[in-house]
Amino acid sequence: VILINGEHQDVIAATDRGLHYGDGVFETIAIRTGKPQFWAAHMERLLDGCARLSIPIPDVTLLTAETERLCTEGEDAVLKIIITRGSGGRGYRPPFEPEPQRILIRYPWPEHHVPDEGITLRQCHTPLSCNPVLAGIKHLNRLEQVLARNEWSDESIHEGVMCDTEGYVIEGTMSNLFAVRDGVLITPELSNCGVAGIMRQQVMAVAQHLSIPCEHVRFKAEELNSMDELFITNSIIGVWPVARFNELQFSKGVVTEKLMKGLAKMVEQS
Amino acid sequence: VILINGEHQDVIAATDRGLHYGDGVFETIAIRTGKPQFWAAHMERLLDGCARLSIPIPDVTLLTAETERLCTEGEDAVLKIIITRGSGGRGYRPPFEPEPQRILIRYPWPEHHVPDEGITLRQCHTPLSCNPVLAGIKHLNRLEQVLARNEWSDESIHEGVMCDTEGYVIEGTMSNLFAVRDGVLITPELSNCGVAGIMRQQVMAVAQHLSIPCEHVRFKAEELNSMDELFITNSIIGVWPVARFNELQFSKGVVTEKLMKGLAKMVEQS
Repeated sequence: VILINGEHQDVIAATDRGLHYGDGVFETIAIRTGKPQFWAAHMERLLDGCARLSIPIPDVTLLTAETERLCTEGEDAVLKIIITRGSGGRGYRPPFEPEPQRILIRYPWPEHHVPDEGITLRQCHTPLSCNPVLAGIKHLNRLEQVLARNEWSDESIHEGVMCDTEGYVIEGTMSNLFAVRDGVLITPELSNCGVAGIMRQQVMAVAQHLSIPCEHVRFKAEELNSMDELFITNSIIGVWPVARFNELQFSKGVVTEKLMKGLAKMVEQS
Repeated sequence: VILINGEHQDVIAATDRGLHYGDGVFETIAIRTGKPQFWAAHMERLLDGCARLSIPIPDVTLLTAETERLCTEGEDAVLKIIITRGSGGRGYRPPFEPEPQRILIRYPWPEHHVPDEGITLRQCHTPLSCNPVLAGIKHLNRLEQVLARNEWSDESIHEGVMCDTEGYVIEGTMSNLFAVRDGVLITPELSNCGVAGIMRQQVMAVAQHLSIPCEHVRFKAEELNSMDELFITNSIIGVWPVARFNELQFSKGVVTEKLMKGLAKMVEQS
């Protein structure tokens, strides 16, 4: 089911800058029992992304109303919201008065079959490029993720770890990455590269609440050797503990369990 | 006028991966007096881009026929061809059997008012990110160009120079860059970054034909001080000599003139 600018439609203009340049941002939001999760955080990031790209800020009241139209009471779904700068302009130059497009797409809730002991990660060869101007934003330029995800088809591998062009670990193709070492939560520093995920943000909030120290660190894939626990996050999967990364084995640890319980509690109370 | 997969249409599916991820490539082709210029070179790059992104290679016979339908005898126009991987797949993962979309858009020929003595360039702040996996490809991830082009609105500035995140000069927002120093043609090395333009390729071919040595060099913006001549290229503008870059002044030099004449001859004979 698709709503474009509030209308039931399933097509966009072939001249849209979202298609031509990836000139826009998006959010992927979990709808659980009819309710969007972490809505305020998603809206904040969406607006921040638009501001950083100088796309006129979308009307959150409209987005809220349209999202409600797509949610069915009691049902789970995935909602993707895309905001593009719309059509127009001369070449790359944005139009003087852009008409941003609001595209809301509801997908069925995906059934993930994840082993109890944790998932399997691999290392991707496709690097992520660094650009502080785009770092953190969930924008529509996602070819690197597409190429990285295209590196494997083995269904027993759940996610791939991507490093930047300097070899620093940044994130998964569709997730953020956390490690635990000596009781300290560690996640890659994202000021040059990567997407600042909403679930990542929530996990850091839970860690703070539980007085678990959290550090934003630049580290290479080899350093994962020295980590005690490893997990990935995104808005749809929540937290997935990692059992294997290449030849390394991890067991679901105490800190990961604590954070998962804290997160579940936070969701319950929201 | 728009042709999508050979049909007169002006919309694409809201689920197209071109929109969601910039998962595709494009060409911008000059149509002069009803004929596409450097057609074979454009097709070669388009196919090469698809191959590098593992997008099924489009049928050049079809593209040729559809382009002919959009060309009117004797008329000038700009043709943009976009190939996307189409809809489908689960998240970033490409579908097992993609159905690429062919989007051909004809735009009016733009009337550029360019001073005889040459154009004015400025330095952009937005950096280009480096990624050898994507370097050279004319793919649909163009947010950096959009942000760079959005840095100025002064109509007397014709183009902006973009450097990579390490400060090396790469290209203009919509053009490639050439300089001449001591009779040697110099153009930025593009193995990590940038678009390998078709007009750039033609200029290098003309230089070779005229026995003008050409070097692919990594250099910083400061080094433009020591250049004797400067010009930019793209498929629509051809060659534009540069008169000013920041506080530097250049005059249209002997080598630029030679190359422009050689290029005109090449176009005539093709």
